[in-house]
Amino acid sequence: MNSAPESAPARLQTLIGQGVAAIDTPALVVDLDAMERNLQRMADYAKAHGMKLRPHAKMHKSATLGQRQMQAGAVGLCVQKTSEAEALAAAGVHDLYISNEVIAPAKLARVATLARQLAAQGGRLAIAVDSLPGIEHLAQTLGRGENLIDVYIELDVGQKRCGVATPADVVPLAQAIARHPALRLAGLQAYNGRAQHLRTVAERHAALAEVVRLVQETRRLVEAVGLKLPLVTGAGSGTFGLEATSGVFGELQAGSYLFMDGDYARNEADPAQPVFEHALFVKTQVMSASAGHVVVDAGHKSHAIDSGLPRVHGEALEATGCSDEHTTLRATGGAPLPALGSTLWLIPGHCDPTVNLHDWMIGVRGGLQAGTVEELIRVDTRGCLD
Amino acid sequence: MNSAPESAPARLQTLIGQGVAAIDTPALVVDLDAMERNLQRMADYAKAHGMKLRPHAKMHKSATLGQRQMQAGAVGLCVQKTSEAEALAAAGVHDLYISNEVIAPAKLARVATLARQLAAQGGRLAIAVDSLPGIEHLAQTLGRGENLIDVYIELDVGQKRCGVATPADVVPLAQAIARHPALRLAGLQAYNGRAQHLRTVAERHAALAEVVRLVQETRRLVEAVGLKLPLVTGAGSGTFGLEATSGVFGELQAGSYLFMDGDYARNEADPAQPVFEHALFVKTQVMSASAGHVVVDAGHKSHAIDSGLPRVHGEALEATGCSDEHTTLRATGGAPLPALGSTLWLIPGHCDPTVNLHDWMIGVRGGLQAGTVEELIRVDTRGCLD
Repeated sequence: MNSAPESAPARLQTLIGQGVAAIDTPALVVDLDAMERNLQRMADYAKAHGMKLRPHAKMHKSATLGQRQMQAGAVGLCVQKTSEAEALAAAGVHDLYISNEVIAPAKLARVATLARQLAAQGGRLAIAVDSLPGIEHLAQTLGRGENLIDVYIELDVGQKRCGVATPADVVPLAQAIARHPALRLAGLQAYNGRAQHLRTVAERHAALAEVVRLVQETRRLVEAVGLKLPLVTGAGSGTFGLEATSGVFGELQAGSYLFMDGDYARNEADPAQPVFEHALFVKTQVMSASAGHVVVDAGHKSHAIDSGLPRVHGEALEATGCSDEHTTLRATGGAPLPALGSTLWLIPGHCDPTVNLHDWMIGVRGGLQAGTVEELIRVDTRGCLD
Repeated sequence: MNSAPESAPARLQTLIGQGVAAIDTPALVVDLDAMERNLQRMADYAKAHGMKLRPHAKMHKSATLGQRQMQAGAVGLCVQKTSEAEALAAAGVHDLYISNEVIAPAKLARVATLARQLAAQGGRLAIAVDSLPGIEHLAQTLGRGENLIDVYIELDVGQKRCGVATPADVVPLAQAIARHPALRLAGLQAYNGRAQHLRTVAERHAALAEVVRLVQETRRLVEAVGLKLPLVTGAGSGTFGLEATSGVFGELQAGSYLFMDGDYARNEADPAQPVFEHALFVKTQVMSASAGHVVVDAGHKSHAIDSGLPRVHGEALEATGCSDEHTTLRATGGAPLPALGSTLWLIPGHCDPTVNLHDWMIGVRGGLQAGTVEELIRVDTRGCLD
């Protein structure tokens, strides 16, 4: 749970209206112009392809940014955790999908409370399931009432993580959901996380062809027992162009497109998808300079390295190592090393866990060189693990 | 900076006095009995070897735990960041060493303020330097006054990160410090982080032999210009037995010994060092079960994976993958997989960045199976990056 206060510390508040030079390091900075272009590009793309867009808020973890996505046309937001849903609901987002399984009785009770609360506000809660016990416990916890929550059955479409293993396994779960008046069988959760980072377009196309085949097979089997899967939801920033044109998906869950990160940037660009710009940076400073390398004051407590070391924006420098509070850089192509005290901008390898390391994002208008701090964006669901 | 409230959320406070079963997942849990044994073993070891002990609080990030280390004999605490020092000082720790370089003028101003504040409280602030500009800016910012801060010169003794490159480079820095009345030349920072995780005892001995040679050479060169290095400080949980018996080190900075993690546990045990027990765990639950694997509800937003995937405590299970909110486990040696809903205890690969992901640690007395929640330990410096 995130117990941080609603207002930013004074040291951050004084930055509003100041130039980027006033931002002390390390700090998580959003290039608002680039972010807004990304936001609009995806909204336009979804609209043009007749797709619902439900961006994943596990990435930006911000009610403010989620609401801007919804103002541009998104139908609601995805989250992974009950506590994320609670925090975003408290901040005014009323259409939320926990695209993940919840098993613990204590958390199911919170899910039930939130489902009734959102329904009373004219909103909606949805959740994913992949087991009969999960469905039965959810229904028992919700108790009496009709159509209180949307339930998506998760099918493993190549991620080898959660989800039932085969299309045939979806059928008994669909039948179980249909038996409970409190539950609405909303459709199929079909997300292949591994496919997002396959580097070539050809590999991603091949992976998605299999996803589409599995979804079609599932739909056929479920319809054969007289039920329907109203919506198939999934997709990430690496493949959404394939889901959007598949003919079987109805909703896109991509999240990273808003900020883009080093890992997604390593993908071969798919001409069928719009291009997104890096909009998330860690401002850092050279704190130690040696003959062959420099060290900056941001380590992996500032930017996640699960998907690779950060890139250095606009500089002939590469990261050669990273520890808790330091990243070591060396020059590439014979370029000179930056001087002690220099400002550098890191592009994190992975935006989702990077955002989760910070309480506030600093929104800059007018670029990283000459821009001005325009707003502070609270990471509303930072640390929302349960 | 950490802006979390001083008191824990109600959902955590109600855990006090309850059995471990009441802890919802994922949660960061400290086995208090194991932690206290580790704490005492290191305190006894340092005392027996005539060494000062200044544990690194970048690991536990807790004023409470730091004060317990000091009650057992530690002379103070190390931190890496100005904001960590500020937070621990505010929580009542008055002998602090920022074992890292600070370059930004805004942060140096905070360092100066804190140095004067701690001195006025009968305490002491220390800092590391590795450049002449760093020393000059520190002295200018401190302004008039005598002996306001302890300054350690960092020598690169094999880490290839911060620190001057050679023993000869220490001399002009020592002379510069000696010229400023506000600065006290306190000694040498000589920490080899790489040596901590060399797997064999022989490799660690070889690395430390070189560290000791460099320190001796440095001391000789500094004394040749009529100055002294009163204290050599360094060491981590992988090598401290070597620094303690080196004849040149006077202070140990080890931190991880208190909790131990998966990475340190992979080291070949050095018979010259006491044995430490795992005391930090992520309680997690099986949220999805398939034929060949299970998925638990803690991913790398719950436990850091920069030093490897977590181990599963007391189970024939191994982690095969980890994403933001999930860790995938498979059985080893033909053991059965745990059932959906089962509780498991992960031993994080790296304790420092794992603690930094959480606002509170849940202290359990009486073991992980039948124990009781005794206290909540605030992560006072979580998110203290600047």
